[in-house]
Amino acid sequence: MKALRCTDTGLMLEDQCPEPRPSAGEVLIRPRMAGICRTDLELTKGYMGFHGILGHEFVGEVAEAGAGWEAGVRVVGEINAGCGTCPYCRKELARHCPHRTTLGIYNRDGCLAEYMTLPAANLFRAPDGIPDEILVFTEPLAAVLEIFEQIQVRPVDRICVLGDGKLGLLAALVLAFRHEGESLLVGRHPGKLGLVEDFLPTLREQELDAVHHKQWDIVIEATGATQGLRQALRLVRPRGTIVLKSTMAGAEAVDLTPAVIDEVTVVGSRCGRFAPALAWLSRGVLPLDRLIEAVYPLEKAQEAWAHAVRPGAKKVLILIHPR
Amino acid sequence: MKALRCTDTGLMLEDQCPEPRPSAGEVLIRPRMAGICRTDLELTKGYMGFHGILGHEFVGEVAEAGAGWEAGVRVVGEINAGCGTCPYCRKELARHCPHRTTLGIYNRDGCLAEYMTLPAANLFRAPDGIPDEILVFTEPLAAVLEIFEQIQVRPVDRICVLGDGKLGLLAALVLAFRHEGESLLVGRHPGKLGLVEDFLPTLREQELDAVHHKQWDIVIEATGATQGLRQALRLVRPRGTIVLKSTMAGAEAVDLTPAVIDEVTVVGSRCGRFAPALAWLSRGVLPLDRLIEAVYPLEKAQEAWAHAVRPGAKKVLILIHPR
Repeated sequence: MKALRCTDTGLMLEDQCPEPRPSAGEVLIRPRMAGICRTDLELTKGYMGFHGILGHEFVGEVAEAGAGWEAGVRVVGEINAGCGTCPYCRKELARHCPHRTTLGIYNRDGCLAEYMTLPAANLFRAPDGIPDEILVFTEPLAAVLEIFEQIQVRPVDRICVLGDGKLGLLAALVLAFRHEGESLLVGRHPGKLGLVEDFLPTLREQELDAVHHKQWDIVIEATGATQGLRQALRLVRPRGTIVLKSTMAGAEAVDLTPAVIDEVTVVGSRCGRFAPALAWLSRGVLPLDRLIEAVYPLEKAQEAWAHAVRPGAKKVLILIHPR
Repeated sequence: MKALRCTDTGLMLEDQCPEPRPSAGEVLIRPRMAGICRTDLELTKGYMGFHGILGHEFVGEVAEAGAGWEAGVRVVGEINAGCGTCPYCRKELARHCPHRTTLGIYNRDGCLAEYMTLPAANLFRAPDGIPDEILVFTEPLAAVLEIFEQIQVRPVDRICVLGDGKLGLLAALVLAFRHEGESLLVGRHPGKLGLVEDFLPTLREQELDAVHHKQWDIVIEATGATQGLRQALRLVRPRGTIVLKSTMAGAEAVDLTPAVIDEVTVVGSRCGRFAPALAWLSRGVLPLDRLIEAVYPLEKAQEAWAHAVRPGAKKVLILIHPR
């Protein structure tokens, strides 16, 4: 089968990759559409030292009946596969299982291939009526909603989203619909800020000034860059909260003394549950179509990658099996 | 009057420093005893760029009646002086007032002098029966108890204190009396670990191994060094909490990616309220006398400083006005 592999020397599109076989409790899936996210781009720069088939955002269909699933059912899937028995798995926190594998990120081949496998327990039947290119946002939307699983957000909180990347835009849209208090998206690309500015106020980073310093109850750091945390530390109020979403290859110096002096809480935040994300997608109110940059076939995955790394690029999708 | 000043060129013991006069709402105090803390040592290395009279841990007596206080009353005092009208001050959070001054740390002369001033609202009458050399622990004890103001500690939580410095030892003692769950003090100095090992388990840092990795619900980082945060990130469990107590001059690179992946919460923590600390001291159960390294008169403050910076030194006290 065709598959897009992350190797020591970069991306490789394979033609003769062996098809995977599901282990006990797993399901064989034919991915139909996949999304490229910043983590994928970081993986190809060496993050996590991952070597394998890339991709973790997908919509697919069950390729053969098994483990309680019928063939042909359209599915999405949570990306962390836990052991099922440890304390984390028992608390529905397989995403923190110490023995987990993670689709296309850690010890498990991903979805940028003609076939893939995931444990049956990870799968969710896709609600009818949502196009594949919208449903493929389930995973990043779940990562945004994870914030509300982790911290208490009060209706009066003032929330600033830092970064107009794919996750920042999604977070801004969710806040525009969900949050009663003031919210603001800060970014670098007028074109991307423009995508959401009919929903919430936006600001270019260079317009941030002393008026904004130490004024925000919550800062969602989604810049994908270490300087994002430094900026967040300037914006958050004393006793406020920074939600840290950026993971990247390599680390820079960050002086956390301001966080101690101002008693700031910094909350690392990663993957979320799919059920709340599917609830949002079923409602159909988020204008996600405007976040799509381009769609490429799997055969042109390397072109898609080159497009996805362009500054200001929105979500690049890969069409694997057309419906 | 005599006073110990932090200057560009280091410590200076002055003989002819002008006595301070209290502003409206302030009280003139004769400090009797003061403590040297790690922040003081960092200030003389350039932290905060402070130039002025050092010292913020003190027991004193009201030197002249005024602002509702009678002369001769023994007092301790919270070190942050707020504006009294901003939203932080109105919520009893003067320690986060953006206009605050801080005794011996920021824009306000400290207590290592024959006279000092503080706002009347900062003062607490010292409970009877507590010797000065114990009462002088009020400020660092309040800083330890601040942790319980900021985070929820459940009775079953496993808590690791990193660092056997003055704050780490205090935190360990408080946990030994207050916390139902497992707790552990990790340090570098057998002599200091020995001070508290009849109260809680202790471990030398080099004995930490994989058994401890990602096992602790809460890690209290009190090493005073940047590598403390790195160690804390190794010890805390996924979704656990690190309380960051160290402030220091200069910053090193810390890769916060593990905090994102494990969704760790990092809580900066600084000064606390005095009332809970005085409640502990009134009970008289904490064996604080064993945390005292030495007592020097103010005339020998520079010797005291040299003693306080020795590796493994406990709390060095300065006797200013004997009772």
